[in-house]
Parts: sequence; C-alpha cells; structure tokens
Amino acid sequence: MTDPQRTYELDRKHVFHSWSAQAEITPMVVTKADGSWLWDGDGNRYLDFTSQLVFTNLGHQHPRVVKAIQEQAATLCTIAPVAANDARSEAARLIASHTPEGLDKVFFTNGGADANEHAIRMARLHTGRHKVLSRYRSYHGGTQLAINLTGDPRRWPNDHASDGVVHFFGPFLYRSAFHATTEAEECERALAHLEQVIALEGPGTIAAILLESIPGTAGIMVPPPGYLTGVRELCDRHGIVLIADEVMAGFGRAGRWFAVEHDAVVPDLLTFAKGVNSGYVPLGGVAINEAIAATFDHRPYPGGLTYSGHPLACAAAVATITTMEEDRVVEHAAALGEEVFGPGLTELAGRHDWIGEVRGTGVFWALDLVADRTTREPLAPYGGSSPAMGAVIAACKAEGLLPFANFNRIHVVPPLTISAEDARAGIAMLDRALAKAADSLVE
Amino acid sequence: MTDPQRTYELDRKHVFHSWSAQAEITPMVVTKADGSWLWDGDGNRYLDFTSQLVFTNLGHQHPRVVKAIQEQAATLCTIAPVAANDARSEAARLIASHTPEGLDKVFFTNGGADANEHAIRMARLHTGRHKVLSRYRSYHGGTQLAINLTGDPRRWPNDHASDGVVHFFGPFLYRSAFHATTEAEECERALAHLEQVIALEGPGTIAAILLESIPGTAGIMVPPPGYLTGVRELCDRHGIVLIADEVMAGFGRAGRWFAVEHDAVVPDLLTFAKGVNSGYVPLGGVAINEAIAATFDHRPYPGGLTYSGHPLACAAAVATITTMEEDRVVEHAAALGEEVFGPGLTELAGRHDWIGEVRGTGVFWALDLVADRTTREPLAPYGGSSPAMGAVIAACKAEGLLPFANFNRIHVVPPLTISAEDARAGIAMLDRALAKAADSLVE
Repeated sequence: MTDPQRTYELDRKHVFHSWSAQAEITPMVVTKADGSWLWDGDGNRYLDFTSQLVFTNLGHQHPRVVKAIQEQAATLCTIAPVAANDARSEAARLIASHTPEGLDKVFFTNGGADANEHAIRMARLHTGRHKVLSRYRSYHGGTQLAINLTGDPRRWPNDHASDGVVHFFGPFLYRSAFHATTEAEECERALAHLEQVIALEGPGTIAAILLESIPGTAGIMVPPPGYLTGVRELCDRHGIVLIADEVMAGFGRAGRWFAVEHDAVVPDLLTFAKGVNSGYVPLGGVAINEAIAATFDHRPYPGGLTYSGHPLACAAAVATITTMEEDRVVEHAAALGEEVFGPGLTELAGRHDWIGEVRGTGVFWALDLVADRTTREPLAPYGGSSPAMGAVIAACKAEGLLPFANFNRIHVVPPLTISAEDARAGIAMLDRALAKAADSLVE
Repeated sequence: MTDPQRTYELDRKHVFHSWSAQAEITPMVVTKADGSWLWDGDGNRYLDFTSQLVFTNLGHQHPRVVKAIQEQAATLCTIAPVAANDARSEAARLIASHTPEGLDKVFFTNGGADANEHAIRMARLHTGRHKVLSRYRSYHGGTQLAINLTGDPRRWPNDHASDGVVHFFGPFLYRSAFHATTEAEECERALAHLEQVIALEGPGTIAAILLESIPGTAGIMVPPPGYLTGVRELCDRHGIVLIADEVMAGFGRAGRWFAVEHDAVVPDLLTFAKGVNSGYVPLGGVAINEAIAATFDHRPYPGGLTYSGHPLACAAAVATITTMEEDRVVEHAAALGEEVFGPGLTELAGRHDWIGEVRGTGVFWALDLVADRTTREPLAPYGGSSPAMGAVIAACKAEGLLPFANFNRIHVVPPLTISAEDARAGIAMLDRALAKAADSLVE
C-alpha cells in the first residue's frame, strides 16, 4: 500500500524532528503496529518496550479505542471549546471519577506541556504569587515555560532564568544530594532541603510546587514513602499550590490510576496527557480542585486554546478509560510490576555488572547503568551518550526489542496491556542484549 | 442517542472552559454539524458564520476528511515523533508544496500556540539574540510565551514583561496610530515607526519580528500593499528573522493558500494550525526555510513534543489539502470575497450606521461597529462588551446565525466551502439582526 522508501525520503526532505540534529538521524519507518509490537519498513518486528514516548498505555491499535475514534469521526469531529459536547462532558466525568477526591473540574489541553503551563497560570492567579519551585531531574514539557520548569539538560539551551522558576533537589537515594544512606534518611533530608529552599526564597513569593509524582524520563525515582505527604504539608503550611504532574506516571503506568495514590496525597492541581487516551489523539489537561476552580467562577480564566476538549480526543479518552475499568488494566499493571518486572529485572541485575540499580513500580521501571558499581559512575555522562550505551541500544534492536534509553539508563515501559509472556520475553531480550553489548566492548 | 440535558449538566459540573468566568456561562450543547450548519440540543439549526474559532475551513464533517481519519485510525493511530510514518511524510510534502518558496521543512506541533513558541525558539537559537518584536492588536496563542507575544487584552493578566517581547504598532488606517489619512501614508508611517523601534531597541538584540500576515481575532486588518514587503526589507537589513503567523489567515482563509502571497513576501518561518486540517484533529506547525533548518543539521534542536507529527492529525491534513486542491477551495474563497462578502457587507454598511468600516478579503471579514461614525467610538470598549454588542449577538442567534464577536466587532468567517447562496442568506440574517438590535436599544 505505502512505500517505506518513499516515506523515508519524504521524511528526510520535509520533516523536522523533535530534539534532534536533523542531518544525523535515520528514523525507523514504522508501517504497522499491534498491541505491544510494531514493524519497520523492512518487515522486521519489534517488541515495544517504550510505549513510544511512554503513552500507548493500551498498546497499539486497541480495537475499542479505534472504533470510538471512527464513530466520533462519523458523528462530530470537532467543535469550539465554548460549546458543550457529549464526548467532552463524558470524558471529564470519567477523568474526575478517578482523580483524587475533590479534583472534579477538568481543563482540557492538547498535551502535557500546555497542561503544566495552564496549571502554573491557575496557581499564580489563585495565589497572587509568581515563583514556582520544581525539581532538578524532571521533565515538564517543551514549550517555553514548561521547558524552564524542566530540570533536565533539555532546559539548558532555552533557559534565561526569567520565568520565575527555582529548582530544588528531590529524593534520589542512589545518587543522593543529601549524603543519605537509607530511604527514610533521604526522605527526611529531602524535605528539610525543600523547607530551607522555601524559607530562603520567601514562602509568600511562591505560587506553586510542581513535581512529577514519580519523575519519568529523568529516571523513574519512586519517592520514598512519606515524601509527597511531607511536600503536601509544606504547601499547606505556606499556602502554596501543589501541582502533581502525572503526564507520564498517571493513568495506570505506576500500578495505580494516579501515582500520588502511593502516598495517598491529594494535590491541588493534577496534570495529565499520554495515558488518558493512550495518545491515539492529542490530549492533555488539568484536574482542578474546588478552591482553585472557584477563583475563576466570576473572574474569567485568562487562558485557553482552540482545541480544548476536542471531541475526537475526548471520545478516545472515554473508550480508553472505560476499557481500563472493564479490563482491570491498572490492576494488571500493578501485578506485572510485582510478579514480572520487579523480580525479572532484579534477577537481571544479578547477572550484569552494568546494572547499578533497578527501580520502579507497575509498568514503570528504570535500569541505572554504571561503569563501576562502587563509584556508581554512570555508563554515559549526564545529558550525553557513550559507546557502551550505544552498544546496548543497538543490541536491543538486533534482538527485536525497541528500548527506551536516556543518558545512562534503560527504561522498561511497555504498554500496560502487555502479557506476562511478552514481558518475560522482552526481559530475556534485554538480558541477551546487555551480554552482547558488554562482550562487544571487551573485545 | 445522547441526552443534551445530561451533556449540559456534566459540562457544568466537570468541564473548565477557556477564557471564561466559569459560573457565568451557559454553553450551547452542539449535537450535530454538517457543512456550514450546526444544531443545538433543542434541535435549532444555526448557520455557522464563525467556522468555530475560524478553523473548520472545509466546514463540518467533510466526508473525505472523515474517511481519511477513519482509515488512518484503522491502520495506525499514533507513533512517536522519532519514527518516520507515511501520513506524516505526505502531510509535510503537501504543506511544503504550498508554503512560500524555500520553506520546505515542517516541524509539527499540536496547535498554533506551540507553533509560535517553537518558531521563536528557532529564531533565537539561529540568531543568538533574545528579543522579539510583535504587534499590538494581535493574537499568538495561550501558552506563556505565546500569550506574552500576543497584543490583545488576554495578555494583560499573564504578562510580567519578562519574555523578551516588545510590542509595536502595525498599520490600521481606520484607527491609525500615526495620524495617517490614506493607506499609502499609513503604510509608510507604520514602516517608519517599526524602523524607529528597531533602532531604539538595538537591531543586534532582536531575534525575530512575529506578525500575523493579516491580524485575525484582533480585527482582520488587511495590511496595505507594500507593508509586509517593507517589514521583510527591515528584517533583511538587520539580520532579523521574519515569522509569519498564518494560523488563522493561512490555508485559504484570505483567498490565497497563505496571506503573505497578497504581498508576495517570503518569511523565514511560517506558523500554521487550524485550516491545515480544518481542526478535525489537533495539529499545528512551523514551516522552516533552509538557512534556519541548517542551523539544526548538526546541532540538536532543543525542542519537541510527544505528539509531533501525529499520524491521525497528519492524515486529516493530507485529506484536507488534497480536497482543497481538487475542489479549488482557495479559488472559491477568493471569489466569495470578491463577489459575495465584499459587495454584500459593503451594502450592509450603507444601511446600518453602526457599521463604521467593512474590511477583509476572501472569507475573512470584519465589521467594525461604532456608536458614532464621526468619532469612530467603538460600540464596545477595547477588551470589553456593551449592551449594544450583546443585543447584536442575541439578535444573530435569534435569526439562526452563529456570529463571531470580539469587543466591538462582528467577524464574518464561515467555512471556505460555504455556498454563495448560504453566504447571502447569512448576510441577510446579519442585516435583520443589526436592525433588530438597533431598534431594541432605541426603545
């Protein structure tokens, strides 16, 4: 039907790619995808351990979501945000039925970046304050404010330290900023650090603390129990809005509908995208608590976008969430974490010296690869790559596994709907790939 | 099938709306739409003179675009930006075939706001400069940088004058900032003003001039011939990147594929959204010239987004552009402007004292309503509303016409595919509505 060679040539001629040196990339032509698998232009099949950019939570081409999109397309593709529409109303109801208690209003955006931008705007106008605290080792989106909020190297070329953003350190025991040796100590010291930052920045100047409930691309550092609760208490004490970024961690990825549930914390605002409709149609949003929503009852909210609450995107969300409920996808994700990924990846660490730490939950796992287990020297520098990491990635692909790599880490983030059998097969591929890569570098 | 009452109740309970005081709105439930018409929950039919937010250029539910979405959904809903994909490649090829000469690479975004944000980033990194000039009376999007670039009151609650943005005055003879009395004089003085702003801000500090080729929501002020050419010359003289925002004016709206063609100007970057696929799936982008694209050949472009080049959105763009080509939609839009809207609205102005000026081109028209033709006092204050404007809007709806209103203006911006007959019927509704509204205020 389509010609992969022509697709490739037109891509190289006309498509400008995200986060890339344009002349140095050779994009894989994807011609087909189904569940946890996809095919390239040469007919090679790959097990997708990435969920693309960690968004196809229901896998590729889930028939119920495809059908919902087709039916909504036949009915009403689009309508302006000012109207009311059944797909939009129903998506908002379903989302609000799963967000933490009290976050009952939904502002729809096109993705995670604008969700975070609008959450910050709401917090600033609600509090009358400007400053925002966010974590080092985080990602919050690609638009100007969102990339400034981000705490990874993608911020550097875009940052003039001019958007009222202050970065702090979160808990990350394996590479502790606090010289801690236990999870409890890391938690306590990270909270003490945040308390100091708040005190020294001036509590009355801070509109919001924004953090990924579990940082995603930055390394899947599951916070120690009590950390998010501690942050919530600091916010309450100082009238600071707590914004949980659940763009990647939310909608089942972490084995709960939302990752804040691991610490039973209720944020004031919760941002989402990706898993809300498995990315089948661009969609993001902000779930808003009553107090902040009420700020804009009689004062216009000064923000919006053309495609807010897009019916096609919302219909995909309705089908996705309904499927997740009926097929118990979140429970499946939690079980996979406990029974397959946790034990399987830990076992892998026993066989490969490069694996410094295995961490994660649900279907949200990171292998922190190190050149030396004692010094914990990363297998690639922060913000960079290395021959060893290149070898791991190449070996995964040769095995038929599509890996998610970031600096010195491999993340294991397949669709939540992956079967235990495929999950084990993928871990075995990773096992062989790590062995091959290590061998290739010794020679 | 669906229950409009339930849709409305769930909307009020769970949907947070753009640009609104949430407790003061009563959204119309839209249950059906077809071509230039739509239906509310009570079965009332409306002629859509808004194209929603000026984006359904092919009207509602165009069968070819619906079919393309359904087929793409059946094949491959989504794939990460890093891959190559046939829908994405083909959409990029088609877009590049219509953009001005040399703008051959396309960076896809989710909408117009992030398109403008990324265009600014490219300009800043390409020039090594930070400042951006944009117009008063403009709209460039709702995210933080985009709303700061904006020159209408929606900027005010979001602006800390901290994003390196400087606003200047563009040509607008009817409300001239330059005390000009002819189009030629307005053009000359607007260019002299811009030249002064550049000189006083420091040419070497300015990365880009961003302007809507024809400002849209801010008032559809078609620039006098020679203005855009003059801006292009100023940019060339000082090494400033010229960014044409064609989010609303582009893809046929102004009777040309892109509105810059009216002045035969080639910008360095051109941003688009809306009409590219009639908004059936969220999509925007930046068309990039060779010099700026080359900046990122071997230096990574530090920007991106999860849904860049979304296959479903791109498939809708392919179907939209192909339909526009084959059905000669742009030519139809130009003809409607010359034969129906231009003469019809001018005739209207002869009968209604409130119409101070009629301006526009293609299917992109504004009625500038005034309380007094001599003083040109607007019928509603800048950034506000008035009983008279409220009466006009209500009378339009009572006539079965959905009007696009902004402050003291009514914009006439139906789908480009509207028939001459429906266009004339809409103008007649507007005629009766203006008469009724004026009468109601006299009594």
